[in-house]
Amino acid sequence: MNGLSINTLAGQAVDRMIASAARLRVAVSKGEAGETIIDAGQNARGGIEAGLAIAEICLGGMGTVEIAPTGANPKWPFELCVRSTDPVIACLASQYAGWALSHGEGKSAFFALGSGPGRALARKEPLFAELEYRDSASRATLVLESSRAPPREIAEKVAHDCGVPRENITFIFAPTQSLAGAVQVVARVLEVALHKAHELKFPLSRIIDGLASAPLCPPHPDFVQAMGRTNDAIIYGGKAHLFVTGPAAEAMALAEKLPSTTSRDHGRPFAEVFKVYKGDFYSIDPMLFSPARAIVTAVETGETFHAGEINQALLDVSFG
Amino acid sequence: MNGLSINTLAGQAVDRMIASAARLRVAVSKGEAGETIIDAGQNARGGIEAGLAIAEICLGGMGTVEIAPTGANPKWPFELCVRSTDPVIACLASQYAGWALSHGEGKSAFFALGSGPGRALARKEPLFAELEYRDSASRATLVLESSRAPPREIAEKVAHDCGVPRENITFIFAPTQSLAGAVQVVARVLEVALHKAHELKFPLSRIIDGLASAPLCPPHPDFVQAMGRTNDAIIYGGKAHLFVTGPAAEAMALAEKLPSTTSRDHGRPFAEVFKVYKGDFYSIDPMLFSPARAIVTAVETGETFHAGEINQALLDVSFG
Amino acid sequence: MNGLSINTLAGQAVDRMIASAARLRVAVSKGEAGETIIDAGQNARGGIEAGLAIAEICLGGMGTVEIAPTGANPKWPFELCVRSTDPVIACLASQYAGWALSHGEGKSAFFALGSGPGRALARKEPLFAELEYRDSASRATLVLESSRAPPREIAEKVAHDCGVPRENITFIFAPTQSLAGAVQVVARVLEVALHKAHELKFPLSRIIDGLASAPLCPPHPDFVQAMGRTNDAIIYGGKAHLFVTGPAAEAMALAEKLPSTTSRDHGRPFAEVFKVYKGDFYSIDPMLFSPARAIVTAVETGETFHAGEINQALLDVSFG
Repeated sequence: MNGLSINTLAGQAVDRMIASAARLRVAVSKGEAGETIIDAGQNARGGIEAGLAIAEICLGGMGTVEIAPTGANPKWPFELCVRSTDPVIACLASQYAGWALSHGEGKSAFFALGSGPGRALARKEPLFAELEYRDSASRATLVLESSRAPPREIAEKVAHDCGVPRENITFIFAPTQSLAGAVQVVARVLEVALHKAHELKFPLSRIIDGLASAPLCPPHPDFVQAMGRTNDAIIYGGKAHLFVTGPAAEAMALAEKLPSTTSRDHGRPFAEVFKVYKGDFYSIDPMLFSPARAIVTAVETGETFHAGEINQALLDVSFG
Repeated sequence: MNGLSINTLAGQAVDRMIASAARLRVAVSKGEAGETIIDAGQNARGGIEAGLAIAEICLGGMGTVEIAPTGANPKWPFELCVRSTDPVIACLASQYAGWALSHGEGKSAFFALGSGPGRALARKEPLFAELEYRDSASRATLVLESSRAPPREIAEKVAHDCGVPRENITFIFAPTQSLAGAVQVVARVLEVALHKAHELKFPLSRIIDGLASAPLCPPHPDFVQAMGRTNDAIIYGGKAHLFVTGPAAEAMALAEKLPSTTSRDHGRPFAEVFKVYKGDFYSIDPMLFSPARAIVTAVETGETFHAGEINQALLDVSFG
Repeated sequence: MNGLSINTLAGQAVDRMIASAARLRVAVSKGEAGETIIDAGQNARGGIEAGLAIAEICLGGMGTVEIAPTGANPKWPFELCVRSTDPVIACLASQYAGWALSHGEGKSAFFALGSGPGRALARKEPLFAELEYRDSASRATLVLESSRAPPREIAEKVAHDCGVPRENITFIFAPTQSLAGAVQVVARVLEVALHKAHELKFPLSRIIDGLASAPLCPPHPDFVQAMGRTNDAIIYGGKAHLFVTGPAAEAMALAEKLPSTTSRDHGRPFAEVFKVYKGDFYSIDPMLFSPARAIVTAVETGETFHAGEINQALLDVSFG
């Protein structure tokens, strides 16, 4: 990989975020273990710009997240557009929220899914067995969709697992209910497409490029509603264009299975689905987690396949 | 505000503009009082890019202005999109053209409304009594919608009121009739929404974020027509999404009153309205100065309210 | 021109590309004559981001190329948007692929059309007689739509014609069939408008600004199909807005003649046209090479003229 280091690239973006803390309305502090903690939406105000900055850090410094006034839905005209120099590394080795971090029990227990380039140093998840990418940076960054900073023990564990000094660890956190939180989750629209492709057993090494977009959803003060909206932005308003190598038939099969429309749980707001399954995230059909529309180009044959459908009416209900 | 200085941030953008003067086609000179003067559209050619650079300086280095080919109106497909890390500071403490600068009498009299971060050093306007933000930079930048540079006396007055040495003052000017002028005025679409919210007595401290867009209007050689078009781009083609704290009922009331459609003067091109009032700007209903559509999200309840309407037909008449 | 050097500006972008080679998936090497060679899509993977970077280098560091999810065509929603601080210099003195570079005969013969700022040092093309711009940099960059690097003799010839040391020459190449190749060609949508205006004898000095966009086309492994798609993206999906000085009647005439719809060869995919003329590029009507829609504003009268039509159905056939 010619020394490509997503923690180094993201670390430069972290340094810019710290230098711009007042402008981005984020609060920077030192944790008990010496780690850097950036609050982007709990006690700090944060905002849409902070969310965009977090999203680019989540992508390991390998991607761009922009906002365009597309107007596809007149009620929710502003759309996030995500691209990357290497979607598999940026989205799966970095942005995917796959590292479960928990500590303690009962009311004071901490649980969050770690996202960001630090995952590629720790490589704790089975997914990394299928990713060729490996980082060797001496600093690590993780992003947490959370309403509080992780406890000392988690900072210590992350430093240990990443093999970097505690003072070289940065945690950025924002609750799902915050503007920054909503932005950084909706910015996962490309990652969700790649992750579902992986679930469908499509070889990751054959996904060579991709672009995706989804409408910016308004935040909600209730966690379940907030999470529902960010998911609905992707599930009912997201579109992704992937470029893959290999036979056209396999690209076609991928396109047909990729959209959320193929899921048995498709058709109502995510918060409702979540309640039907009594909050058991893992009972929800994993096929639901994907953009509404998929475009897959087989670059070796030149054919492109389209499937799925944006559901503006459902977005209107969900974002209401 | 943790040392947040909009004159320092904008000053960095001014320095980049000066370093890129040839590329941006702006002319940089020294004024009689030692101030820096940047002509972006009178004797210098300037252009759309110069206008975007001015717009970001106007926003005090706290915002981004981009162009997207949205296609909502096939005749005027290119749209400006404005966002900010803190819309109240960027738009009201900096971008709003609120500092009346005049000198002399008769034909040689100079008059322009000063815009940009220098306003937050001078704090001459009543609006600043309601803004918590205060800058303490040692350089100041003002943008003037004008066809000429200000006279020495105004440079001296601005330096005095801002409390900075004359040689640390920068004036950027472009006439409304120029491309750069048109761009930097249309880029006020978010500011206009915030200013009208203020006129409606909505507490500024409760506007925590925002986004807006408006079509790029073609320039016109006649001042009144040029001004008319830039206003029409916002009044009939602008849309703004604000995120506010507080009760949903107040967010709803704000959304309902915010769009230009609520004004008694709404419905014909701004240049016509201006003529009806015989050029007396202050007779025009202040409620007219706002985007065509408003979206207001009450972040503490999760509700969003929509009002107003884009008027493509009127844009076609005005921009024609 | 106040020292404006497009090779210096583009050279800074080349240096950034080299520093980001692993991230952009481009391969950097030294050629036999000491020149720098960047492969962005033949043996290196490259991608959309590499294509955007090449496009900005092609524009001589004077332009911006962005991607927006415009949604005008639901099957091909991602659109490139091109702007420049000076379209005539950026597009015609730099981006236009006008420098024919050939060496050898038979199967090992090399032929490519050189694009990029190096052209403005060599000034070998008649077009430069009509361009005021002249560069005097000590480094030169050329972009080649090609599946291989140029041979030593071409590197030597380019160094000689540009008047710079061989080791200060950079060639960036990508085949039309690659993602980077497709992006950098579609990013010529503004250049094509300017070039056709020139063919129509519209004085270049009167084109003061411009913007354009076109859909990102999927690549195709066959050269003719790949070239067909990149041309169709512009010819059937492109739109350009030019701002010109001079009489309204001349702006109107330019608008009416500018779109591809005025060409006798308009109406079927470019690859078919190419085959009809048995691959003889120079038999194709030159009037075909332009955006589908043209918007021309006469800035001295304020009038704007519109002509042409986007053909979504043909894009669906071509990109199919």
